[in-house]
Amino acid sequence: PPTKLPKVGTTIFTEMSQLAAEHGAINLSQGFPDFDGPLALLDRVTYYLENGLNQYAPMAGVMALRNAIALKVEKLYGCTVNPETEVTVTSGATEALFAAIGAVVCPGDEVIVFDPAYDSYEPAIELNGGTAVHLPLRAPDFAIDWSQVKQAINDKTRMIILNSPHNPTGSVLSSSDLDQLQALVKGSDILLLSDEVYEHICFNGPHQSLLRRPALAERAFVVSSFGKTYHTTGWKVGYCVAPAALTTEFRKLHQYLTFCTVHPIQLALADFINDYPEHYLELPGFYQQKRDLFCQLMTPGRFRFTPANGTYFQLMDYSDIQPEMDDLTFARWLTTEVGVAAIPVSVFYQSPPEQRLVRFCFAKSDDTLREAAEKLCRI
Amino acid sequence: PPTKLPKVGTTIFTEMSQLAAEHGAINLSQGFPDFDGPLALLDRVTYYLENGLNQYAPMAGVMALRNAIALKVEKLYGCTVNPETEVTVTSGATEALFAAIGAVVCPGDEVIVFDPAYDSYEPAIELNGGTAVHLPLRAPDFAIDWSQVKQAINDKTRMIILNSPHNPTGSVLSSSDLDQLQALVKGSDILLLSDEVYEHICFNGPHQSLLRRPALAERAFVVSSFGKTYHTTGWKVGYCVAPAALTTEFRKLHQYLTFCTVHPIQLALADFINDYPEHYLELPGFYQQKRDLFCQLMTPGRFRFTPANGTYFQLMDYSDIQPEMDDLTFARWLTTEVGVAAIPVSVFYQSPPEQRLVRFCFAKSDDTLREAAEKLCRI
Ligand SMILES: CSCCC(=O)C(=O)O
Ligand SMILES: CSCCC(=O)C(=O)O
Repeated sequence: PPTKLPKVGTTIFTEMSQLAAEHGAINLSQGFPDFDGPLALLDRVTYYLENGLNQYAPMAGVMALRNAIALKVEKLYGCTVNPETEVTVTSGATEALFAAIGAVVCPGDEVIVFDPAYDSYEPAIELNGGTAVHLPLRAPDFAIDWSQVKQAINDKTRMIILNSPHNPTGSVLSSSDLDQLQALVKGSDILLLSDEVYEHICFNGPHQSLLRRPALAERAFVVSSFGKTYHTTGWKVGYCVAPAALTTEFRKLHQYLTFCTVHPIQLALADFINDYPEHYLELPGFYQQKRDLFCQLMTPGRFRFTPANGTYFQLMDYSDIQPEMDDLTFARWLTTEVGVAAIPVSVFYQSPPEQRLVRFCFAKSDDTLREAAEKLCRI
Repeated sequence: PPTKLPKVGTTIFTEMSQLAAEHGAINLSQGFPDFDGPLALLDRVTYYLENGLNQYAPMAGVMALRNAIALKVEKLYGCTVNPETEVTVTSGATEALFAAIGAVVCPGDEVIVFDPAYDSYEPAIELNGGTAVHLPLRAPDFAIDWSQVKQAINDKTRMIILNSPHNPTGSVLSSSDLDQLQALVKGSDILLLSDEVYEHICFNGPHQSLLRRPALAERAFVVSSFGKTYHTTGWKVGYCVAPAALTTEFRKLHQYLTFCTVHPIQLALADFINDYPEHYLELPGFYQQKRDLFCQLMTPGRFRFTPANGTYFQLMDYSDIQPEMDDLTFARWLTTEVGVAAIPVSVFYQSPPEQRLVRFCFAKSDDTLREAAEKLCRI
């Protein structure tokens, strides 16, 4: 059949994780922890599994989990949301991103994305007949150039996709970024999709969620992920917070994309969040220790870097090592020859700039980080 | 925002299950068992949960599970499939249906569906810019009128969606149906999507999977569901078997719809299928006993019916009870006044015919069926 997504191949995450497995390399490519979720959380899943909670969950998500989400959003961001009509649990943040885009993007619509951009945004836009308008983040700090955004906005602009803390660069939106975004969209009917899956992994100051600003929240789908927060990426449970009118459209998609999400896991997450409300408050410290350890271990090596402000990813510049090598080739070489897998950054650009960057995931045990840094510093 | 799916409201399954819960009615509406999956299967999930298998599964599914699927398809339908390139594990059959439609349906395409049609087909077709062409199944046996299909086919016909055993009617495709389908699509480039989620719940003779016919399998996405087979609808694990070229396109969608499916559950399913290969062979007998019990219990009542040939659903005609009442009103009345929730059938039609049918789910304990039948026979 003719392909609807000619540009799409296998994701870089699958490619690099497979290459790492084949070559026995330490896998710092695809973003997932090599440690487990909290035992009390795992135990709750077992409890519900073994106690007959294995049939369909409610379409919008288990009410106790939606209540827990609403409580957190209120506590952290001062945003009151109605769990009945404004919160939907999804099969991972990936489904939430697709459903948000699918709910509102129509043929001919333009959607602004910032490069480097997470790889699922553009296929979702294209499948819905829209066009992704790619704006590069500013080098070297990967901040948004708001004057560029202003210029890119026109009558066809349906949506702007934000992502903070930002994957793959680790940059974060500041409060002044929110000011500028607010000024830009005021009076327009532009919608926002905010990918905040690393909301609890933010190091220098509080996470600037769009939910902090009523003028942004009123037009935003805000997406997050339990997999990132509770070290359980393989459970695929995420959620979307959006105003009731947007949530109505969002659920129309969700209802026919997956209908609902694994019941015993949803129930367990709700219990765990209620029983250990301080867990996610410890996450910035937990990951900052890992970032600091990894950066310190990498200091003697030949990579150049600025410590990430958020996420569990650290960009590293290899200009001093292989200045002539493109980053995909370099990442493969690192995997097969050095024994550490990384993600090349240019794959997330429409027009990759002249830079030599790879991304390492530091959501790993200290031992793994030590072993990886040792190999990388030997180069 | 303007709605992309103006016809879509809350699914009838959510509506009726909620109404049943509010009124304490016996819920024979939404299709799910009121008994649990096999203990050995639940125990395997716990095992993987407690042993660190909680990060991303491979995008296309755990290899052991894909192998198990390929083995079954070979054993039951004599169809050799390559688990590497032709089998994909999805977040429920719902995701698989959406991905198959999204992978190939383009703006302007027509897709033939048979009414009454499962409610997720049409929104998926419309979101991809296609048009659903609705052909009614023949009354009263709910068979396909192939001469009608022949007439409906034209240059725009991209896909035909089959569903056997059929939800909500319980009818099944015969071998001669497959002959006729084969003759119709021969030489065309029409694709097939076959929703076979009740493949193991087929009572009078073997299930006629499209995978039995190379000439059909070569152009088909065949979708099934572990939730239906292992009494665990709330786990949301399904799969799609399709030729390599179609699977390539299918996975492009899957990769951006959900990326992958709950890891510990996939591993557990693979173990269970290998350890208990006879489980699904017992399913027809298991559910036939329930169908026969329910039908026998309902015989003294005023509903008219012909026992279903497949699925865990039984249609019942209420013409002799409330001839003037439309079926949505009747289903609500049954729920609130009689205390048994059912699904109206007309909601699955573009143009509902003059019939008085509701659907009951008999995937329930014998006690539940007895209690429900007693209430229903008191009318
Ligand atoms: C869904 S696999 C990719 C995981 C991830 O978000 C990343 O590595 O960036
Ligand atoms: C996904 S909820 C609907 C379950 C079902 O397939 C049915 O009741 O027909």
